[in-house]
Amino acid sequence: MKTNAGRFFEDYRVGETITHAVPRTLSGGERAFYHALYPARGALYSSDEFARACGLPAAPLDDLIAFHTVFGKTVPDISLNAVANLGYAEGRWLAPVYPGDTLRSVSEVIGLRENSNGRSGVVWVRTRGLNQRGEAVLEYVRWVMVRKRRDTPAPAPVVPALAPAVAAADLVVPAGLDFTGYDFPLAGEGHRWGDYAVGETIDHVDGVTIEEAEHMLATRLWQNTAKVHFDATFREDGKRLIYGGHVISLARALSFNGLANAQMIVALNGGAHANPCFAGDTLRAWSEVLDKAETAAPGVGAIRLRLVAVRQGAAPFALKDAAGKYLPEVLLDFDYWALMPR
Amino acid sequence: MKTNAGRFFEDYRVGETITHAVPRTLSGGERAFYHALYPARGALYSSDEFARACGLPAAPLDDLIAFHTVFGKTVPDISLNAVANLGYAEGRWLAPVYPGDTLRSVSEVIGLRENSNGRSGVVWVRTRGLNQRGEAVLEYVRWVMVRKRRDTPAPAPVVPALAPAVAAADLVVPAGLDFTGYDFPLAGEGHRWGDYAVGETIDHVDGVTIEEAEHMLATRLWQNTAKVHFDATFREDGKRLIYGGHVISLARALSFNGLANAQMIVALNGGAHANPCFAGDTLRAWSEVLDKAETAAPGVGAIRLRLVAVRQGAAPFALKDAAGKYLPEVLLDFDYWALMPR
Amino acid sequence: MKTNAGRFFEDYRVGETITHAVPRTLSGGERAFYHALYPARGALYSSDEFARACGLPAAPLDDLIAFHTVFGKTVPDISLNAVANLGYAEGRWLAPVYPGDTLRSVSEVIGLRENSNGRSGVVWVRTRGLNQRGEAVLEYVRWVMVRKRRDTPAPAPVVPALAPAVAAADLVVPAGLDFTGYDFPLAGEGHRWGDYAVGETIDHVDGVTIEEAEHMLATRLWQNTAKVHFDATFREDGKRLIYGGHVISLARALSFNGLANAQMIVALNGGAHANPCFAGDTLRAWSEVLDKAETAAPGVGAIRLRLVAVRQGAAPFALKDAAGKYLPEVLLDFDYWALMPR
Repeated sequence: MKTNAGRFFEDYRVGETITHAVPRTLSGGERAFYHALYPARGALYSSDEFARACGLPAAPLDDLIAFHTVFGKTVPDISLNAVANLGYAEGRWLAPVYPGDTLRSVSEVIGLRENSNGRSGVVWVRTRGLNQRGEAVLEYVRWVMVRKRRDTPAPAPVVPALAPAVAAADLVVPAGLDFTGYDFPLAGEGHRWGDYAVGETIDHVDGVTIEEAEHMLATRLWQNTAKVHFDATFREDGKRLIYGGHVISLARALSFNGLANAQMIVALNGGAHANPCFAGDTLRAWSEVLDKAETAAPGVGAIRLRLVAVRQGAAPFALKDAAGKYLPEVLLDFDYWALMPR
Repeated sequence: MKTNAGRFFEDYRVGETITHAVPRTLSGGERAFYHALYPARGALYSSDEFARACGLPAAPLDDLIAFHTVFGKTVPDISLNAVANLGYAEGRWLAPVYPGDTLRSVSEVIGLRENSNGRSGVVWVRTRGLNQRGEAVLEYVRWVMVRKRRDTPAPAPVVPALAPAVAAADLVVPAGLDFTGYDFPLAGEGHRWGDYAVGETIDHVDGVTIEEAEHMLATRLWQNTAKVHFDATFREDGKRLIYGGHVISLARALSFNGLANAQMIVALNGGAHANPCFAGDTLRAWSEVLDKAETAAPGVGAIRLRLVAVRQGAAPFALKDAAGKYLPEVLLDFDYWALMPR
Repeated sequence: MKTNAGRFFEDYRVGETITHAVPRTLSGGERAFYHALYPARGALYSSDEFARACGLPAAPLDDLIAFHTVFGKTVPDISLNAVANLGYAEGRWLAPVYPGDTLRSVSEVIGLRENSNGRSGVVWVRTRGLNQRGEAVLEYVRWVMVRKRRDTPAPAPVVPALAPAVAAADLVVPAGLDFTGYDFPLAGEGHRWGDYAVGETIDHVDGVTIEEAEHMLATRLWQNTAKVHFDATFREDGKRLIYGGHVISLARALSFNGLANAQMIVALNGGAHANPCFAGDTLRAWSEVLDKAETAAPGVGAIRLRLVAVRQGAAPFALKDAAGKYLPEVLLDFDYWALMPR
């Protein structure tokens, strides 16, 4: 067999390092594509001039381009036989990515626990994205449920202790970032860090109906090869499952309307793909302010946000039912830190 | 409310200047995307070598990339609550846009007139697109019908006097442009400026059936946020309205077949989106030569064209009915000046 | 008539040279688009760093980008009135194409033979793709069946003698290519040239369901103007025929799974678009090793492969029926040479 059948639960060892294949040089082409796929309008990521006025050498690529690129490389080794993508934790963006940079991904297996049914298990990996100078640009923990190949004995369970959120003190502000001269009219909204209150919720108003062609273009762009996104004959219901990252990027872009100044994503505290998303769904988003913190960088505050994506039929700001289960219209519950002018 | 609900008729004042948000650095990515969305084949915009042979430093981005980018930025401030996009006038391209340029948009309100029903009004704006050096690359007047928020008194009507067409003497030919060595075989057609007669009509033959994914990718690429293009739940009929600029670009690209040498768009005299366009429509185009003029640039003539986009079922060269109303198959009536080798 | 109605069989003369229109400067935008349209993951074409480690100055554009670009330019002159695209032969990639290069195409008519029905004939052309320095980057022979305009006498038949395959000695290895330090883990698979046996077959496992928007974006990107790909009103059945090149690129990208190290395409020995492909088809691919050869370049072997694309319902590795006719599920039979680390 010359083809990759993917790894099964038995194929992972705690402490093992996996070098993921196919490094990727990114260009302005990926930015144009990202902005055609998502209504992304963060001025810092749209204009070299705006970015320079904020102390950066040029407009970085959208932070989620870095995330999807790094994530996509891990799919053939981590989630080809995954039953479910269970969660994220301890994600941090460590350096901006610019056109011309080449990214690759490396993961360390940090936890393993077989399920009680004996047919699958949970694998925890810490993944790092590295650029052409070997600098880490992103790191995050992800855990997935993976099928077992056959009836093998369970390994000793190792469950990593993960922080419920990245501490504000651990956020990495890009070198040189300075929001003291931030141009609010050019950015699109006047609301600054001080205008947001913990507990505040924002309905981002706009909706986007999703097409098959779009989510497949997106998923391929990140070289994510999971069959279930592309092959209408794979699932019994003939539906193609939409890559969860497509939902993240769509929701994040919609959140511009109300959070235009939440410019840079610097941490991913946690995330759940609450329900599967399919073409034809009309996606909307709302946010809740979870926390706020100061940073040492001039004019730069940090804001912790819950970003929720829902489909048609969702009630305003409704997340879970009385039993604590996500409502069926909820697609994504995404907890992150962003940087905002103070 | 932190989200932008858009401006209503009462929110505009004649003389007011609006700085539109989210400047945009364009790259080869936007060009590749434009050429994937539209069958655009103007050699001057496709090949750096061809452009250099015509006296330009490199291939500019298609003129309608500049138009859509500048236009898209105005949507959140001008047409979010627009009932209809009523017209264009006095449009001029003032300098080519190249990969690496950053565009932003500024509009001045030049007219206001409340409708007799008291529920909406017409707003006229003159919009300028500026590059990173502050040079104007494009200007045009647009007027839209905008809803009123509530029952407020009507302002004194101000209706700007607009030229029926840009005078040939006011056309701006890009510095250095020289068509004396123009390579007709490489451009794709042998017809030069002298071969076209005022009154001549050209059926551009080819048709393109429009898909939802394509018009949404296009509209997002220009950061145009109007809900009606993206959200299938927004209109009662469940249809997504196609951005009028998508129709303009599709028709213009189809006009290559018969007008391959009408290379640069230098003026927009007027335009009407005669009927709404929806996915599944098959679009065709025809042109009529309205005027011709000489320019001072070597080998460069100007040709004024009416570009008409129609959908399936249209009769050849039919535009309006006996009452002067656009026929239902007519989607676009677009009046522009282009530069052509003499 | 100012529009191009395309050439008919009578319009070709053996020995004639046709300069195809609209040269094209390629950028990172076309690469990003290619990787969004196809699950292409060849590391040499994805990463500047990987390419430099193999002796190249940067990552070239995927070889099929060069092919489609050169091919697309020939469509208005060769296949606008083609009834069928009959075959390819003697194709060779002569130099890598990089972002910034400008390609144009020139064809020589090398054969003509009227069909016995007197209503059409076969036209053979040898096409060359040239870059901005006038260097040939690609050449291939294609023959198509073209309609006659009217009842004219048949020309003397000229049928070129074409090699059944490009001889290994005639393969052009890019200057500087060196696979002695090839990084197999980063490339995605450990199988090297020596691991493949002539006669071996590989099922590439993955499937992709094709959408209208995707194949039209692809076909336009190569400035291929054939109506049948875009206009749903053109065929009586209301279907848009998918450009054969879309099937080639999709199958080639799927073949990564099992042939990740078959990095560079250097020859096209032959190819048949066995059956038409339509949106909704789910495409899969398999390969057969036809031949192997050494090259003079360090660490570089050549492998001759048959790449077969099939749609839903295909039996494993089934190609033709007892009568030698392609099975109805077979879409493509593509015979090529690739370079692989030894």
